Amino acid sequence: MGRVPKRFVGSYGQLDPKIGVSRPEGSSANKILRDFTVQCMQAAGLSVRIDRVGNIFGRKDGSRNHEKAVMVGSHLDSVINGGHLDGALGVFSGIEAVRRLRDEKFDNQRPIEVAAFTGEEGSAFVVGAMLGSAVLTGKMSTDAALSTRNTHGLTLHEVLMKMGYGGDFEYRVDDIDAFIELHIEQGPVLDTEGISVGIVEDITGITWLKSTITGIGNHAGTTPMHLRQDALVAAADAIRFLNRRAREMARSQHSPIVGTTGHLSVYPNNMNVIPGMVELGFDIRATSMENMQGLTDETVFFLKGLKQENGIDVHVESPHLQPPVKLSEEIIRVIEKAAVQAGVRSKRMVSGAGHDTQNMASIARTGMIFVPSVKGISHAPMEWTEWDDIEKGVSVLTGALKTLSFCCQ
Amino acid sequence: MGRVPKRFVGSYGQLDPKIGVSRPEGSSANKILRDFTVQCMQAAGLSVRIDRVGNIFGRKDGSRNHEKAVMVGSHLDSVINGGHLDGALGVFSGIEAVRRLRDEKFDNQRPIEVAAFTGEEGSAFVVGAMLGSAVLTGKMSTDAALSTRNTHGLTLHEVLMKMGYGGDFEYRVDDIDAFIELHIEQGPVLDTEGISVGIVEDITGITWLKSTITGIGNHAGTTPMHLRQDALVAAADAIRFLNRRAREMARSQHSPIVGTTGHLSVYPNNMNVIPGMVELGFDIRATSMENMQGLTDETVFFLKGLKQENGIDVHVESPHLQPPVKLSEEIIRVIEKAAVQAGVRSKRMVSGAGHDTQNMASIARTGMIFVPSVKGISHAPMEWTEWDDIEKGVSVLTGALKTLSFCCQ
Repeated sequence: MGRVPKRFVGSYGQLDPKIGVSRPEGSSANKILRDFTVQCMQAAGLSVRIDRVGNIFGRKDGSRNHEKAVMVGSHLDSVINGGHLDGALGVFSGIEAVRRLRDEKFDNQRPIEVAAFTGEEGSAFVVGAMLGSAVLTGKMSTDAALSTRNTHGLTLHEVLMKMGYGGDFEYRVDDIDAFIELHIEQGPVLDTEGISVGIVEDITGITWLKSTITGIGNHAGTTPMHLRQDALVAAADAIRFLNRRAREMARSQHSPIVGTTGHLSVYPNNMNVIPGMVELGFDIRATSMENMQGLTDETVFFLKGLKQENGIDVHVESPHLQPPVKLSEEIIRVIEKAAVQAGVRSKRMVSGAGHDTQNMASIARTGMIFVPSVKGISHAPMEWTEWDDIEKGVSVLTGALKTLSFCCQ
Repeated sequence: MGRVPKRFVGSYGQLDPKIGVSRPEGSSANKILRDFTVQCMQAAGLSVRIDRVGNIFGRKDGSRNHEKAVMVGSHLDSVINGGHLDGALGVFSGIEAVRRLRDEKFDNQRPIEVAAFTGEEGSAFVVGAMLGSAVLTGKMSTDAALSTRNTHGLTLHEVLMKMGYGGDFEYRVDDIDAFIELHIEQGPVLDTEGISVGIVEDITGITWLKSTITGIGNHAGTTPMHLRQDALVAAADAIRFLNRRAREMARSQHSPIVGTTGHLSVYPNNMNVIPGMVELGFDIRATSMENMQGLTDETVFFLKGLKQENGIDVHVESPHLQPPVKLSEEIIRVIEKAAVQAGVRSKRMVSGAGHDTQNMASIARTGMIFVPSVKGISHAPMEWTEWDDIEKGVSVLTGALKTLSFCCQ
C-alpha cells in the first residue's frame, strides 16, 4: 500500500505552491493529464473509450458482463491556479481501486467503468459547470455542448479534436447501476474533526442573488449625514442581515445552510465620495429546498425594504438556482460498511460544493466519498490532503466497489 | 445686472454635459482659461502680475495705495471631467465685482487684488492640493512646488514656462489685509433650503483612515457558518458603526461632523468565495478638532475590537490629517451686512471641502461666500448654479469689497 503516494505524485508532477495548477479543458496541462490518465487506465488493464464530448471511460469487464455497470470517477479539469487534487484525485482513486481488484484477482460480476468527465469546473467553457456529466445524463445536448466556445473563441469540438479527445463512443446511461465519486471535501469539517472519510448524504442546492443598490454619489465633506443616500451603508445592512440569518438558521434548523456575500463593488470607490452605487453578489446554499428558498426570500425582502428606509433604489435578480440533491441511502450504507471493514472512521456529511455526482444521481444509485482538505483549502494552490487520508479513502472506495459489483449468488 | 450671465457663459464656452471640463495645470484648457482670465482682468482695468508658481494677480490701485490690499479670488484648475464653476467662478466673480466698482466710480481706498491660484485641485501636481496658495502663504517652498512633477513627468516649472505663466513677481503676504473667496457650495444645503448665499464660518478638518481587514478566504458552500473568518462581514460592522456614530454626533453636537466609508475593495471578490481580505477607506470631517479626533478614535477602537470577536486581523493607518480652520468673525459680519444691503437671504454655514481660503486664513482676516450647487453636485459634469444665485453672490461680494477696501475717514 506504501506505493500509493508515489503513484499520485507521479501523476501530478512538480507543484508550485504559489501558482498551483491550471487545467481548463483544451490547455496543454489538461491534455498531458488526459494522456497520462489513458496510459494509467491501460496499465490497469482497462479498455478505454472516448465519447463525443471528451468524457473518458476505462472499462474492466465483469464475469457477468451483460449486467449493468458500476461507474466510479470524477473530472480532470481544474480552475485557474487551483489545486492538484480537486477532481483528478477521484479519477486516479478509481483507477487505483480497480488495479487493486485486479491484483487481488477479485471477481467483479458487474463491469466497472472508471470515468473522467469533461469540463466539471466550467473554467474554460462557461456554459455551465459539470458539462461532461450533464451531457452523459441528458441534461445538456451533445450539440449544445460541442458548439460552446471558450475565452479564445474556440468551440469545445475544436478543442477536443486538437487534443485528440473527440471520440465517437456513445455511453448508454441505462447501462449504469450505480455511480460513486471520491473527492476532496473542499471544506474544513473532516480536517477539524480529525476524520479521514466523509460519506455525502446531500449535495446542497445553490441560489445566487445579484443586487444593485443605487443611492446618490456625493461629496463626503459637504453632504450632511441627514441628506445622504449612501449605497454602501445600505449594502452593509444587507451583508449583516444575510450573515446573521444564515447563522441563526444553521443553529436552529437541523439541516445545513450557509449564506455568503462574496462579491461587492463600490462606485465610484473614492475615499472622499459617498458611494452612489454598490453591486452585491450573494450565495445561499442548503440541503433543504424549503430552507434555501426561505433564506433567499428573506434576503430579497430585506433588500427591498432598504428602499423605503434609505431613499435608495434596489434591484435584485437571481441568475442561478440549483436544487439540492439527496444521494442514495443504499450506497451510503455500502460505503459505511466498507469503512468499518477497512477500520477507517467515517461520518455522514453534506457537500456544499457541486459535483458530477449530482448529475449522476438522476440516472443511477449514487454515492460520494470525501477525504479531508487540510485547513479546508480548495480551488487554491495550497489545496492538500494527507497521503494517509487518501490511502484510507481509496481503501473504502475499493471495498464499496467490491460490494456494488456483486449482483447475484 | 442682466449682463452677468452672458459674460459667464462666454468665459466657459460650450459645455458637454457628459464629459464636463478637465483643466489640470498645464493642459490646453487650463492655458486657454488663464489667457482669458488675464484678458478679462486687463479689460477691467487691472494690472496683471504673475508669480513664480503661476499665481495670477490683477491689481486695482487704491486711493490710499500704500495701505494693505484686499484680495479676492479662487483657482482656475479643475478635476478631470469636473464642472465648470468650481474655482473659476470665484476668479471671475472677483473680476466682475471690481469691474462694477470701476463702473460705479467707487473710491476704494485700499488696493484690491484679484487672485487666480495655481493647482488648487491637485489634479496634475499631486504634491498636495491648494499648491499656489500654499506657496503664497509660506506653507510650501517655491522650489519644492516648482520641482514637483505631473503624471507626464514634467515639472511644474516646465509646464508653467511652456504655458507662458512662469513669472518673477514676488507677492509679499504682509501686504494683504483681508482675503475673500466666492465658491460654489459643492453640497446640498443652500439648494435644499432655497437660500442664495452661504457665509462660511468654519472649514472642516479632514482625517483619512485606511484599514485592511484580513480573514480567511474559503469556499462559500463548504465552510459552515461557525467556522468562518469573513472579512466582509467584519467590514460591514465597521461601515455601520461609523455611519451610526457620525449621525448621532451630528444630531447631538452643536458643530457639524460627517463620517463616510468611500472606499471598499474585496478580495478575491467572487460570488462563491468567502471574502478573505477587505480594504477600507474612511473620511471623517468636523469643524471641531476634538470631535474629529473623538470620532476617529472611536472608529479605530471599533476596528481593533473586531479582531477579538471575529478571529480576523485588522490593520489601521491614518495617511492624512488636516485640522479645521475657523474664519474671521469680522469678515463674516461684513458679508452678512452686504447681504442685507443687497436684499439677499444668507446663512452661516460650514465648508466640508478644502479651499485656498484655509491657507489664506493663516496670513490675513479671511472670509468665504458660498453660492448654491444644484442638487449638491460638484466635481462632476452636471455641476451647476443658477445664474440668479451667481448674480446675488457677486452683489454680496461687491458689497463686502466696498466695506473691506475702506480703511480710514
